[in-house]
Amino acid sequence: MGLDEVVGKPHERLASYLSRDLADVDTLIRNRMVSEHAPRIPEVTAHLVDAGGKRLRPMLTLAAARLCGYDGPFHVHLAATVEFIHTATLLHDDVVDKSNKRRGRPTANLLWDNKSSVLVGDYLFARSFQLMVETGSLRVLDILANASATIAEGEVLQLTAAQNLGTDEATYLKVIRGKTAALFGAATEVGGVIAGASEEQVNALRTYGDALGISFQIVDDLLDYFGESATIGKDVGDDFREQKLTLPLIKAVTKADAEEREFWRRVIEKGDQQDGDLERAVSLLKKHGALDATRLDALAWAGKAKAALDVLPDDPIRGMLLDLADYVVARVN
Amino acid sequence: MGLDEVVGKPHERLASYLSRDLADVDTLIRNRMVSEHAPRIPEVTAHLVDAGGKRLRPMLTLAAARLCGYDGPFHVHLAATVEFIHTATLLHDDVVDKSNKRRGRPTANLLWDNKSSVLVGDYLFARSFQLMVETGSLRVLDILANASATIAEGEVLQLTAAQNLGTDEATYLKVIRGKTAALFGAATEVGGVIAGASEEQVNALRTYGDALGISFQIVDDLLDYFGESATIGKDVGDDFREQKLTLPLIKAVTKADAEEREFWRRVIEKGDQQDGDLERAVSLLKKHGALDATRLDALAWAGKAKAALDVLPDDPIRGMLLDLADYVVARVN
Repeated sequence: MGLDEVVGKPHERLASYLSRDLADVDTLIRNRMVSEHAPRIPEVTAHLVDAGGKRLRPMLTLAAARLCGYDGPFHVHLAATVEFIHTATLLHDDVVDKSNKRRGRPTANLLWDNKSSVLVGDYLFARSFQLMVETGSLRVLDILANASATIAEGEVLQLTAAQNLGTDEATYLKVIRGKTAALFGAATEVGGVIAGASEEQVNALRTYGDALGISFQIVDDLLDYFGESATIGKDVGDDFREQKLTLPLIKAVTKADAEEREFWRRVIEKGDQQDGDLERAVSLLKKHGALDATRLDALAWAGKAKAALDVLPDDPIRGMLLDLADYVVARVN
Repeated sequence: MGLDEVVGKPHERLASYLSRDLADVDTLIRNRMVSEHAPRIPEVTAHLVDAGGKRLRPMLTLAAARLCGYDGPFHVHLAATVEFIHTATLLHDDVVDKSNKRRGRPTANLLWDNKSSVLVGDYLFARSFQLMVETGSLRVLDILANASATIAEGEVLQLTAAQNLGTDEATYLKVIRGKTAALFGAATEVGGVIAGASEEQVNALRTYGDALGISFQIVDDLLDYFGESATIGKDVGDDFREQKLTLPLIKAVTKADAEEREFWRRVIEKGDQQDGDLERAVSLLKKHGALDATRLDALAWAGKAKAALDVLPDDPIRGMLLDLADYVVARVN
């Protein structure tokens, strides 16, 4: 999800349009990060929260609420909630993945340790929980509880699925729903719910967030092979080195001959990687058209996201959300 | 918290008295542990949930609700909620403490790995969140959100406080509130709330749970030096080896002369431990009367717990809760 960085123009227009709300979100986040009893907490979280993440998820909540005409205070609480959940999962991912970069900086894990990452993540989950309770909406709580379960299930599923060559596209979809799309979908859905939007609109907002998140994650997984470190905020080939069977690989494995299959088994299942293996993987992805096929999938999900917005009011925010869906895929050309 | 095992008779009478409710809790826990998408989840949780923990925390919720005349279904949801939160914190503790035994078995951490412990813990938190939302009580959600924050803060505070000889008894109290008492207090409080008890009774139930939890943890910390491995379900001296400054040590450090202080600095702050150091620590605890002083503190908290129950109905459950407070301290004689 290091690609927050490169979601460019439509994102910037949204940020500008929602700048007052976003400033309120930042203030709330800063206030709620503080712990009277445990001063180490803001030391760890500031590192992530200040790291210049583009606040994409909270912005989706704000945009959905405003698009549905909301005029109360709680979209700010929900936007902060969503960002806290996101930050908590990043902290827990740091324990998990042993990745060396996160948003282009050393991970909290290296600055501190596993203990801090786990427990400060737990603290942020608890703070997010307090924030959503303050909205007084049981429906919002239900949506976020279900999203939390989907996120955790997806992460656990990834543990067993990622290094298994038998993993199919349906399983990959469950994994990235947990990794990305569940929180995107909840972010837009709760924005609609808090605004009192119609069922049809609330469903449309969830579909938009979910499909945008899937598209976003597919592109992210593609850029891990075909992007540039400077733009994607992490090293090219991280997924490969971590033996993660992402969508481009699943497509290439499906078309692999016996010898290629042996290659994938060695580098992904066994993790026995040597110099030149990443280059061979990339050439196999190209040979089997996995780049184009994966990009088409991302485009289809972006299309689904855009179509969902038909039932929402004609408003500048809707235009920016449509552009955002295009932009997410435009990152891979 | 390995002492669940030795909370004997009053606990057993409560379990017998509440056996039908407890069976419902077990069924609910088993149903909700399951993950359609990630079959590894029950593999990890079954290990903890089946390990014969005495279900002390869920029993407190059931007891509080029944004591206040509750006759609906949701005390079972809340009892399962509390057990899930407890199990999740144990899983996250496994990542943290590198302890080798948990409830007398190898930890999930050794059977599986850090990844599974973190993510399956997150899954259980999410499941507990779903369960509490089902009760439809915002007040219950508020109590459990605040307890979650206190738990996480206490755990983070322990990271910095545990190896610092300057840690005082007030800080120790904050740590064990997070570690144990916050969840005990929430367990009894939500039982009262769901039963629609009066404010006075709800407050009394929270005070009982909180004080019982503090007493319980103080005794646990004492048994780490003066118990026997077979009864306490972990190795004697675990806290010492993990360089944890618990209450008996805080009391001994306060009375230490210069040479003893140097000893504590070496073994606790620096973690430079040699053969015979645990025995020396125990003899210093005895020399300064830290055993008796700590036991008196535990007794005082048990007394506070019992006194709180004055405003609750005269009922067999109240008698068992009173006995339970006595029993917790009777473990150290």
